[in-house]
Amino acid sequence: MTDGDRVSFYAEMQALRAAFQSGEEPPSLEIAGPRERLFFNPRQVTSAIATCGGLCPGLNDVIRSIALGLHYLYGVKRVLGIPYGYAGLARASAPWQELAPAAVAEIHHAGGTILGSSRGPQPIEDMVDALERQEVDILFVIGGDGTLRGAQRISQEISRRQRSISVMGLPKTIDNDIACIERSFGFETAVGASRDAILAAHAEARGARYGIGLVKLMGRHSGFLAANATLATSDVNFCLVPESPFALEHGDRGLLPALKRRLLARGHAVIVVAEGAGQELIAAHGEPHYDASGNLALGDIGVFLRDRIEEYFKRITMPISIKYIDPSYMIRSLPACSNDSAFCLLLGQNAVHAALAGRTNAVVGYWNQQFTLVPIPAAVSARKRIEPDGRLWQGVLQSTGQPDLSGSGL
Amino acid sequence: MTDGDRVSFYAEMQALRAAFQSGEEPPSLEIAGPRERLFFNPRQVTSAIATCGGLCPGLNDVIRSIALGLHYLYGVKRVLGIPYGYAGLARASAPWQELAPAAVAEIHHAGGTILGSSRGPQPIEDMVDALERQEVDILFVIGGDGTLRGAQRISQEISRRQRSISVMGLPKTIDNDIACIERSFGFETAVGASRDAILAAHAEARGARYGIGLVKLMGRHSGFLAANATLATSDVNFCLVPESPFALEHGDRGLLPALKRRLLARGHAVIVVAEGAGQELIAAHGEPHYDASGNLALGDIGVFLRDRIEEYFKRITMPISIKYIDPSYMIRSLPACSNDSAFCLLLGQNAVHAALAGRTNAVVGYWNQQFTLVPIPAAVSARKRIEPDGRLWQGVLQSTGQPDLSGSGL
Amino acid sequence: MTDGDRVSFYAEMQALRAAFQSGEEPPSLEIAGPRERLFFNPRQVTSAIATCGGLCPGLNDVIRSIALGLHYLYGVKRVLGIPYGYAGLARASAPWQELAPAAVAEIHHAGGTILGSSRGPQPIEDMVDALERQEVDILFVIGGDGTLRGAQRISQEISRRQRSISVMGLPKTIDNDIACIERSFGFETAVGASRDAILAAHAEARGARYGIGLVKLMGRHSGFLAANATLATSDVNFCLVPESPFALEHGDRGLLPALKRRLLARGHAVIVVAEGAGQELIAAHGEPHYDASGNLALGDIGVFLRDRIEEYFKRITMPISIKYIDPSYMIRSLPACSNDSAFCLLLGQNAVHAALAGRTNAVVGYWNQQFTLVPIPAAVSARKRIEPDGRLWQGVLQSTGQPDLSGSGL
Amino acid sequence: MTDGDRVSFYAEMQALRAAFQSGEEPPSLEIAGPRERLFFNPRQVTSAIATCGGLCPGLNDVIRSIALGLHYLYGVKRVLGIPYGYAGLARASAPWQELAPAAVAEIHHAGGTILGSSRGPQPIEDMVDALERQEVDILFVIGGDGTLRGAQRISQEISRRQRSISVMGLPKTIDNDIACIERSFGFETAVGASRDAILAAHAEARGARYGIGLVKLMGRHSGFLAANATLATSDVNFCLVPESPFALEHGDRGLLPALKRRLLARGHAVIVVAEGAGQELIAAHGEPHYDASGNLALGDIGVFLRDRIEEYFKRITMPISIKYIDPSYMIRSLPACSNDSAFCLLLGQNAVHAALAGRTNAVVGYWNQQFTLVPIPAAVSARKRIEPDGRLWQGVLQSTGQPDLSGSGL
Repeated sequence: MTDGDRVSFYAEMQALRAAFQSGEEPPSLEIAGPRERLFFNPRQVTSAIATCGGLCPGLNDVIRSIALGLHYLYGVKRVLGIPYGYAGLARASAPWQELAPAAVAEIHHAGGTILGSSRGPQPIEDMVDALERQEVDILFVIGGDGTLRGAQRISQEISRRQRSISVMGLPKTIDNDIACIERSFGFETAVGASRDAILAAHAEARGARYGIGLVKLMGRHSGFLAANATLATSDVNFCLVPESPFALEHGDRGLLPALKRRLLARGHAVIVVAEGAGQELIAAHGEPHYDASGNLALGDIGVFLRDRIEEYFKRITMPISIKYIDPSYMIRSLPACSNDSAFCLLLGQNAVHAALAGRTNAVVGYWNQQFTLVPIPAAVSARKRIEPDGRLWQGVLQSTGQPDLSGSGL
Repeated sequence: MTDGDRVSFYAEMQALRAAFQSGEEPPSLEIAGPRERLFFNPRQVTSAIATCGGLCPGLNDVIRSIALGLHYLYGVKRVLGIPYGYAGLARASAPWQELAPAAVAEIHHAGGTILGSSRGPQPIEDMVDALERQEVDILFVIGGDGTLRGAQRISQEISRRQRSISVMGLPKTIDNDIACIERSFGFETAVGASRDAILAAHAEARGARYGIGLVKLMGRHSGFLAANATLATSDVNFCLVPESPFALEHGDRGLLPALKRRLLARGHAVIVVAEGAGQELIAAHGEPHYDASGNLALGDIGVFLRDRIEEYFKRITMPISIKYIDPSYMIRSLPACSNDSAFCLLLGQNAVHAALAGRTNAVVGYWNQQFTLVPIPAAVSARKRIEPDGRLWQGVLQSTGQPDLSGSGL
Repeated sequence: MTDGDRVSFYAEMQALRAAFQSGEEPPSLEIAGPRERLFFNPRQVTSAIATCGGLCPGLNDVIRSIALGLHYLYGVKRVLGIPYGYAGLARASAPWQELAPAAVAEIHHAGGTILGSSRGPQPIEDMVDALERQEVDILFVIGGDGTLRGAQRISQEISRRQRSISVMGLPKTIDNDIACIERSFGFETAVGASRDAILAAHAEARGARYGIGLVKLMGRHSGFLAANATLATSDVNFCLVPESPFALEHGDRGLLPALKRRLLARGHAVIVVAEGAGQELIAAHGEPHYDASGNLALGDIGVFLRDRIEEYFKRITMPISIKYIDPSYMIRSLPACSNDSAFCLLLGQNAVHAALAGRTNAVVGYWNQQFTLVPIPAAVSARKRIEPDGRLWQGVLQSTGQPDLSGSGL
Repeated sequence: MTDGDRVSFYAEMQALRAAFQSGEEPPSLEIAGPRERLFFNPRQVTSAIATCGGLCPGLNDVIRSIALGLHYLYGVKRVLGIPYGYAGLARASAPWQELAPAAVAEIHHAGGTILGSSRGPQPIEDMVDALERQEVDILFVIGGDGTLRGAQRISQEISRRQRSISVMGLPKTIDNDIACIERSFGFETAVGASRDAILAAHAEARGARYGIGLVKLMGRHSGFLAANATLATSDVNFCLVPESPFALEHGDRGLLPALKRRLLARGHAVIVVAEGAGQELIAAHGEPHYDASGNLALGDIGVFLRDRIEEYFKRITMPISIKYIDPSYMIRSLPACSNDSAFCLLLGQNAVHAALAGRTNAVVGYWNQQFTLVPIPAAVSARKRIEPDGRLWQGVLQSTGQPDLSGSGL
């Protein structure tokens, strides 16, 4: 069904050389793009779009690109918007919306999603029933890890029923942590907005004697946003991410003593913490539990750290002033920045190409300068994480000058 | 000592006519500006600048304008920056800083205050001792209500000691609530940034079924920021300010039932609440107490409302999704917007003119298109508040379409 | 017909005192607001809105506020948008547009005018014919000096025909130069955007040896925008406005020798010039002529200055690098900033109040903290200009440190 | 000297497979990063930094990253800033500046270059003389194509003199057109700012009957900026780039007739043109000539197009309103956006690693997710250009809906 080339997962020569010499080609991803043969007859296609999970900059850009691409590139006349994600697909609580070109032309200027969203799993059968009832041929699902797993199950149920409905995923992760996908939409916008929060924390920190600015950023399993925002501002003294565990206080090691030294030396400090960092430190405070989407519910590391810091300095009778900033809702609800808008446009066009060619149970990704098609099972098989020895984390360490906070020396 | 005109407090003709016919002139304020006679010899003057209380956009602009004005307009050579406000003035914990032109030329590009700040009262005698020790002739104090009261006491102590040190206040209030002062620096910047928070709340609200976006803005006693931000976005459905008490639930009246009706009708809602609103509703939850600056410590109306809203809809088994945004630290730490920068420049220049002319125990204000000099006792005598019948609040009611929330009909 | 108070034109006590003592009250302006008695029956009213002349930030806000105000405050059902200003009113080249609430709810997020605009006078009779044909009761016209003169003539023609059509003006001037009106919408937005252009000019100037950044800003007769933008950045070395004539070169006086001295001393320079400045210098280059709106067509002072500067330094063999920036189209097409949006909302509401009360041949203004109603003849009788001795221009001179450039010393 | 891996130039599997099967490995680039062995003793190193050519967002970020990297990563004590690029290197017209950490810590908040820049070639011998005189061990040069050719010649002259001075290039091109380099700093910032210019053009176009907004963007040989900005706004109807020649008018084909059709159908149009587009159309108007940097001096396609459009519609007596916007100076002088700042930081760190390891005559690039070291001869051997069949240009065509403008059908 594909007539395209593939892109190598690895581009490093040592790995490539070894693979080809061994006779086994390196892992690779299908390159996306228009296909010579279509599976569906565009004139007769009904397609539907749903957005699931939390907000992310660019959602409306992606909706718009799919709707306009279907209409203008292929002449698809019936494009439906499903209200409130999987919940709206499973239960017909609100009417589905016609997404004619005029209805979507200007939606990318606003943040959020015009379709509404929801969290959590829904009965697969109900959702496939609804697709059949609405005579949907192609379902576009924009969402994260849990959403894509749901799409996979919808796709399996469709197979079981021997129907030919395509399910095409568009990966949404403001954490930029989906495997096999170099860049996810909204991430650049989030880095830009995170800088504003860090500058605010920096101004607050400098505005008081022993002032501390603490910023919590998104990043459940991976600290890409925290790391890039740290590199972007150069005002961060401690960057805490899930990939690099830290201790609070082991004698004179760990975060708190290092923070004290920084304050004594420079009078103020800025800390950026990814929401998934330090979870093991919070663990004693309660049982792990899961949220509606089936994600592990995280303890609030921002509030936790703020409280521990206040306790510590109270204990050592050093008067501090700490300001805690949680900009998450203000970041994820932004309209996409210019680069993200352009990226979303191409992403949506490639999803349209793939779906009309009959591809299903796949997501559109980006890797080594190519838009790609990634099977959903591969995309949800693992998470992309910061490599402690890679240039990103080394750049962070060089930028912050932060010491080893693991406390492991003890 | 003054050679200037005054500006009438009232400009409405009925009031003016009545005053002049009665033989008593209407209250008026001294117009600021350069004076023919100086009290101090600029070449021998030592001046010092302190910033007190919370951050506000434009602090660095004002510091810069005073320092450059002293230097370039009058040739004052010795301008000192006092670290960390009254605390730094009372206790010599950090060295005072020379504010030569090169040291302040670019500071307005950053938010916060390069001098640092602190909250709360300090021993008046210690502060005056320090002024004498440093041979300060003019003290510029940038701060709010509590700070200006402190300046007044410093001024009284100086009189008691029969010294001729001028104390010149520059009113800082992001709430824009100081009496006799039409406009305070930083307020416009805050209105602009508040709009971003409201747009975020709006995107979050629309992104979920029965979605609610709740934004808490600054405004301890007056809701000017909440009201203006509401007018600026047109996406707010409920604007809650200290001047207009509201009930949570009185039968089918009050905020919660009105919110339910809005959600059922439109699917989402945005609420903006000033931090000082609804305090009487929180009162049952604890004793009122005072913060370090002597301001009444407010209960957190944002968290309070969020919790009451969640309880209410749980009780009536209506599934909502509420997102609470508190952008305060991100707003008050911004650099000044363009208009505020220009305003700060003129404000600082007028403070310099007044101080060198020997004025003391006064603040520089703005009224009816004129920069003015307001005696500190007048400025702290009362607060400016929104008039319920005035055009601002009527505009808010028309923009939100919110019903009477007082619950007083029962 | 009015039940309101008036606001004194002057608020200075010396002027007020003199007026009342003489028995003649000072000039005053009617305060705007809702009136007890309406002239029109809102249920039967047809109103129409037109935008004329160049773009200005806030046009869509004003259109929106009028349309929503008519609908929600008074229940007016028929609100029409006239395409392309007076041209569209005079010639029915495009259909008029229904401005129902849904059609205008989101228009303020974009710059420009959804109605389109046009320049220049049109046959008055044709326009009034169209108003009669469309059975318009109230015409709202948003435009500048020329547009308001047109509104006045339309109003006179309506009187001549003994019709009761109200003509209500909303003053648009990005130059903020309309008499009796303290603040015009879009001006603050323009000051903000002008700062960006000046920062660009500053970066370009510092980026080269003897680098010069030259920025032309709006301001045909008045330099308010240039002056405020200068105060807002503190990077401007020469601010040139229509109110303060300057010479190019009179011996060692005038702009060019002063520019040379600045370059030799500091290595770079930034010049801001209002478009109406220095016209007498260009005059020798051609006959004055008028544009389509009947405004005096200005010579391009930006290009003129750039060329004279290049000639001068070529002549004295001093190698410079000059970068000329004309940001006008990028500024006037912006969406309104937050404060301007709030201002536009109240402005539009007051226009609606006035029109339904039957006021005609008037504009809504703002003066001494009050929205006002100004007769059009008064508004177009003169222009507001910078006073050379006032605090604004003195602040500019202090900020730039520019010498007397008049060359009049010779 | 290197201990690193390489990254394959191609990542497409078909190309890789063919290469390895043929026994010849595909072309590849050295991966940048810290090296085990240093060539220089950091404690004794003197390094110098120069910025050449036009401004680009991120210049100060790169200067800062190099200076801080040398200091904090390797302990290099002597880092000098060369004023005004090659001109300042060739002629000691201004003193070189010490770039200690405190001097560069905050420079990235401003656009431009704190070092100043210059254009055009300088005598190679004079520049190497100066390097020897200042005892420079490592020269960092930040500049474009012409600058890198200069760096190559400096490097050759150093070899000829048998000196061991490293010359390390950092590629600066707001056009993002340097061969072998996927991403150049400042490009994302430029895309973001270009969107603002296009939105302005769109507002102007919609604001008049038959309104045309024309925006000229950077792009001498490659239209990447124009193409990406077009994708980012979705308001562009014609995107003109050097890679895709167009005709003005060939019967009813070419830009002008297509523009007429667009205006008649939709009432307005937006055109984006890269500065290097359509040069063959301008050619008849004059001889090609070269600018100070040796780049082919381009005819001004923006002004040229504006004039041809006005002529054409005058000829066919169709009244249009065209607004021409040239935002170049306002874009290139911006501070870097958040992502560009982070990118510049890593770019500078990698340049420092490479230089201390003794690499010379190379630039730091980015390819397939890796920072790389590219020999200068390779980097200047060709230009990266938009592929007409690639996803970028296809996306542009789909976004604009523009017809074939080549006129080649005749």
